[in-house]
Amino acid sequence: MNLKSGINKLFFQLLIILLITGHSINAFSQRPKWTNAAPGVWKSIIGTPDKVDLFNSAEIKPDINGLLRISPSGFPLSESDIVAQIVNGKTYLRFPLVKGEQIFGFGLNFKTVNQRGKILQLHVDHYGGTDNGRTHAPVPFYVSDQGYGVFVNSSRYLTVYAGSGVRKDSPDAPEERDRNTDRNWTSSPYSDAVEILVPAAGTEIYIFEGPTALDAVRRFNLYSGGGCLPPRWGLGFTQRVPTLYTSEQVEQEAKLFADKGFPLDFIGLEPGWQSKAYPCTFEWDRTRFPDPASFVKSMKEKGIHLNLWTNPYVSSFSPVYNELLPFSGSHTVWGGIVPDLTIKEARDILTRQLKSSQINIGISGYKIDECDGYDRWLWPDVAIFPSGNNAEQLRQIYGLLLQKITTQIFRQNNTRTYGLVRASNGGGSSFPYVIYNDYYSHEDFITALINSGFSGVLWTPEVRGSKTSEEWIRRMQTVIFSPMAMINAWSSGTKPWSFPDVEKEVRDIALLRMQLMPYFYTEFARYHFDGIPPFRGMNLEPGFSMKAISESKTVSLDQNPYAEAVMKEIKDQYMAGEFLLIAPVFTGQTSRNVVLPPGKWYDFYTGEYAGEGEIIKVTPGLDKIPVYVKDGGIIPMMPPMLHAPAPGQKFDLEIRYYGKKPGRYLLYDDDGETFDYEKGILSWREIKIAADKKGKMSGTISKAEKGKPDNIGNVTWKFMTEK
Amino acid sequence: MNLKSGINKLFFQLLIILLITGHSINAFSQRPKWTNAAPGVWKSIIGTPDKVDLFNSAEIKPDINGLLRISPSGFPLSESDIVAQIVNGKTYLRFPLVKGEQIFGFGLNFKTVNQRGKILQLHVDHYGGTDNGRTHAPVPFYVSDQGYGVFVNSSRYLTVYAGSGVRKDSPDAPEERDRNTDRNWTSSPYSDAVEILVPAAGTEIYIFEGPTALDAVRRFNLYSGGGCLPPRWGLGFTQRVPTLYTSEQVEQEAKLFADKGFPLDFIGLEPGWQSKAYPCTFEWDRTRFPDPASFVKSMKEKGIHLNLWTNPYVSSFSPVYNELLPFSGSHTVWGGIVPDLTIKEARDILTRQLKSSQINIGISGYKIDECDGYDRWLWPDVAIFPSGNNAEQLRQIYGLLLQKITTQIFRQNNTRTYGLVRASNGGGSSFPYVIYNDYYSHEDFITALINSGFSGVLWTPEVRGSKTSEEWIRRMQTVIFSPMAMINAWSSGTKPWSFPDVEKEVRDIALLRMQLMPYFYTEFARYHFDGIPPFRGMNLEPGFSMKAISESKTVSLDQNPYAEAVMKEIKDQYMAGEFLLIAPVFTGQTSRNVVLPPGKWYDFYTGEYAGEGEIIKVTPGLDKIPVYVKDGGIIPMMPPMLHAPAPGQKFDLEIRYYGKKPGRYLLYDDDGETFDYEKGILSWREIKIAADKKGKMSGTISKAEKGKPDNIGNVTWKFMTEK
Repeated sequence: MNLKSGINKLFFQLLIILLITGHSINAFSQRPKWTNAAPGVWKSIIGTPDKVDLFNSAEIKPDINGLLRISPSGFPLSESDIVAQIVNGKTYLRFPLVKGEQIFGFGLNFKTVNQRGKILQLHVDHYGGTDNGRTHAPVPFYVSDQGYGVFVNSSRYLTVYAGSGVRKDSPDAPEERDRNTDRNWTSSPYSDAVEILVPAAGTEIYIFEGPTALDAVRRFNLYSGGGCLPPRWGLGFTQRVPTLYTSEQVEQEAKLFADKGFPLDFIGLEPGWQSKAYPCTFEWDRTRFPDPASFVKSMKEKGIHLNLWTNPYVSSFSPVYNELLPFSGSHTVWGGIVPDLTIKEARDILTRQLKSSQINIGISGYKIDECDGYDRWLWPDVAIFPSGNNAEQLRQIYGLLLQKITTQIFRQNNTRTYGLVRASNGGGSSFPYVIYNDYYSHEDFITALINSGFSGVLWTPEVRGSKTSEEWIRRMQTVIFSPMAMINAWSSGTKPWSFPDVEKEVRDIALLRMQLMPYFYTEFARYHFDGIPPFRGMNLEPGFSMKAISESKTVSLDQNPYAEAVMKEIKDQYMAGEFLLIAPVFTGQTSRNVVLPPGKWYDFYTGEYAGEGEIIKVTPGLDKIPVYVKDGGIIPMMPPMLHAPAPGQKFDLEIRYYGKKPGRYLLYDDDGETFDYEKGILSWREIKIAADKKGKMSGTISKAEKGKPDNIGNVTWKFMTEK
Repeated sequence: MNLKSGINKLFFQLLIILLITGHSINAFSQRPKWTNAAPGVWKSIIGTPDKVDLFNSAEIKPDINGLLRISPSGFPLSESDIVAQIVNGKTYLRFPLVKGEQIFGFGLNFKTVNQRGKILQLHVDHYGGTDNGRTHAPVPFYVSDQGYGVFVNSSRYLTVYAGSGVRKDSPDAPEERDRNTDRNWTSSPYSDAVEILVPAAGTEIYIFEGPTALDAVRRFNLYSGGGCLPPRWGLGFTQRVPTLYTSEQVEQEAKLFADKGFPLDFIGLEPGWQSKAYPCTFEWDRTRFPDPASFVKSMKEKGIHLNLWTNPYVSSFSPVYNELLPFSGSHTVWGGIVPDLTIKEARDILTRQLKSSQINIGISGYKIDECDGYDRWLWPDVAIFPSGNNAEQLRQIYGLLLQKITTQIFRQNNTRTYGLVRASNGGGSSFPYVIYNDYYSHEDFITALINSGFSGVLWTPEVRGSKTSEEWIRRMQTVIFSPMAMINAWSSGTKPWSFPDVEKEVRDIALLRMQLMPYFYTEFARYHFDGIPPFRGMNLEPGFSMKAISESKTVSLDQNPYAEAVMKEIKDQYMAGEFLLIAPVFTGQTSRNVVLPPGKWYDFYTGEYAGEGEIIKVTPGLDKIPVYVKDGGIIPMMPPMLHAPAPGQKFDLEIRYYGKKPGRYLLYDDDGETFDYEKGILSWREIKIAADKKGKMSGTISKAEKGKPDNIGNVTWKFMTEK
């Protein structure tokens, strides 16, 4: 190289860098270039993304086969309407919105479903009572009723303007109005874009094709690796016991459940199982648990799995403290060091400890606490981590990292786990963890359940304590229609039978959960293989007209009560699997309205016709939660067992059928505990309902393929509508 | 220069820049170097500060003479305990805290006074009901009871950990505790530092010397140019009228006040004075105001000044729209463009319009609305401004810029103004603006009034409407002891006499405000010349023991009720000027506790001894707000006039004296309207109370110096305690 041209080149590079780092404005506007990352999934790299993002923190493994099963629909937006700019070192993104479009998602919101118009700062945190973006899973993914999804793969605190900002050069800019005299003046003029600020000099962005909103959600889940498939026992009942319980007391608790005839599949141990906690040793307390291995074995023989509470902050009394110290952040949490889990060494040390002390002796899962916030209990954003990743980034991904580490250990042992976590984020769909928190509004818990389905996370409307037996049964009625049927009574010490006047009703509802296990297990298989959220909002239901909102302004509400209903957000009813519509009743209510989407719907308990594309008012007794089944609905149920069937244990099937339409359902089965299903050791058995010439319905179920799992004993059929 | 060494130098520069902009961690730790910016004011430059900061946005002019009047006390912290680092392009600051230390400030908080332990994101916004840093004046200044102040001169959203983070290398790190068994476990372990994240690669920081907390506040205010000195009429009564009032209706409103015998000094016109509003034309509406100049003149002749509402968003119908367009941001607010007021041209265009259309015809001030938030009503953080300053920065300084622009116009006319603004920030003390908002909790309004005194801003607990006459009088009783005695009834249309059963009491309290004008005017002069906030928390009161909090743990609360009282925050009583302690009574209360600091205190109304360093319980009637006067207190009062004295208008003085200590007070006077006081055309007249040999008290007042303002007519003396 000629010396002079070398200097010129250096000058040029210097100039570019000075431009990038300089203090005058420098806005690089960019039309994103889209590449096909997977079938129906488009990706664009803007600027220079951070090393650490959500997808690579979760180490997603896209399920290409699953994605291929959804029909392609092409790039769903006008490319020219998507704008990315790097301005003074930050990334500004813009995605278009059309009139009447509705968007859902942005993670685990508790009060609202429709997000258009919102301003959010997506920030992993304890939910503080306002849908402002600070929540346990502030997933930067939204889905549109126009049939597409958008994901920003950034580990930063993102500021989202979900249709609130108005640009002066917008072709859809609203007309200026004089507030003094114009009654049509509005404080929120029309906005035609979602705008997102990424406080970093670049990011990856993804677009997920439809054609429907549910398809976009499915693609997002499948690209993240598919939804988790819990072990069968994970869908059974769980109780958490007071923190200082000894192994004897835990055994006694299990006996109490058995004696009372209440189902129980796993028990959660709170901090007292550890020798010290807050911060944690990750070691058994030998005074309360003198022989952990025998204890775990003994519990398993009783059909009870064990789940262990922990948080990630490491006590100086922990055997791994000294090893982890150099890989920990500058700040402590409750005196414990914070392992920098973006560093492999830190992950390996933690892995070794959990594995040797707990997982290898048969512990079945964790409850991973306090990786979300509150701010005052976590490392501050000024903490420094040895990886060089910012504290902000660690905050956004810490829940993902903890889920990944633990999931990987169980996978190494070819055992599935199912646990609880307080923080997650985009890309975590495949982790077998259910989010929980300290908040306790029953109504908002249901809204969160709905929102979880838009964002690839699971949520439990857990039951802790209740002031009245009415509240107790109402909460129990919804938790059984959720990813984890949990009584989290470590603090209140409440038992399922603590309210004697509803003991029978509570037992019945708990047993109903067990009966529904074949159905829920299949629905989780559909989450895993097809990306369909097992619990999800009405807005993802085919035929649930979201368009009615804009129509409703021009039609008479008296003549079209349906349109009126959807004008209000539907955030108190949801779908559980393919066929069930759940309409919770909350304390104080004796009746409620239920919005039935188009098509006929039938009462779950009686099989009677309930309505079709209309709002019905229902007055269930205290013992019933309103549940409706779609026309043609097939609900495979097992006997009310007290534990999930063990691997290889046969169970009888009662197949219920509702309505009049010919029905079809694929029943999933496998060993219920290992990852062997990934090697094809699974079965999908076809259930079919058809009418003979006289119109009489009958059902068939296919046999499991030879050599494939077959746990079904006797099959009985129950035609609920035509008895 | 030799070619090869040139290349080496380039390589070196390149390397440095790559290091600074690279993606691996790069933390430059820095012991700040302190220079003496002014007497008792220390400054350090960390990294490369932004071009735009709070002090230069406000164009502060430090009052060196004022600063020199406070005794120096030396650099108040251990320099080695202050740490600044630039980490991945952001600035991390750390300032030490000692055990038991209390800190106050961080702007206009509404619910809490003591800020230690708080986590705040300082962000100009409408106050949303939580003290989280989002407020109208999130001033990055705090003052310690150890006698110093800290200011971060940044126009960014700062994240503040005001004593919450715990570093693993902290010498004061708290002992690790086991939550399972240790009852002394705490969720908030001891933290020994304030840590602040500045999301920029540098900032200026300032330390203000004590020796007392009040001295540090005074230095902060004086460095910012001293507190504002309103025109005398600004301390009178003001009413705001419904938005579509015509000039005739406004004249009628003034007449009504006069007929009813209610004081009134200025009337606020709401958006309807403009031809279009939200966005604004900055032009008179000629249907409602056919002849603005005559109208303003006619009102002034009646002794009524006029204040005009506006927001800064420019309508396309405004005469300055086209000129401002190229200097406006990318996004609109309510369809109006947002002038980039960091650009001189934009400021000049706006100045010209306000001046020619309004200020030059005699308009006396503005109410500058909606420059704070809410988020959904403002430009988003992804807006781009032609100056290249970030939207975030514009958000933080916009209120300051608007105050500066308008203040400067009035100054050009040698006329003082006094107005309202919804957003301010550090450095704005000298702007004659009082902050207000849409919130309406009476209790929280008082806490905000207290907090305003820590942060160099003014706040009005304005009266809008009331549900009951009790609430009406209770609110009126506090607004008269505040920077602006305002009824903001544009929406409710309420008049002071709207509740007939308290009409007399309301009139009396309004007239008391007028009587107190000489006292308040002097106290504002002390704000201006000495930096002493006219309204301030008890924690700035000499002798009010803040230390009692830490002591209280070791003493019996029964034996030391005072310590008990200060364990709870004192956020419902405050000082008004040198001598008055105001203890508001809120709706529903008939009695309350009042914490009297050490020294004797006397009832304002009766002169009777009230107590000394103790908590008293008082049961005032509905007609009285408890007010106490410090021993030796001198309160100069004028007759209950309906308007502030005009320039040169003499008024009689009643000088009240309380207690037994010899007293001294310097009474301020000037023309009350112009800036001539800056040329020394002012007087400080010494009032002295002393006892003769028999112990009989008498008072003297010095004459105004020859040629200096002398507005005092007859002087009468009222010895309140010894009658």
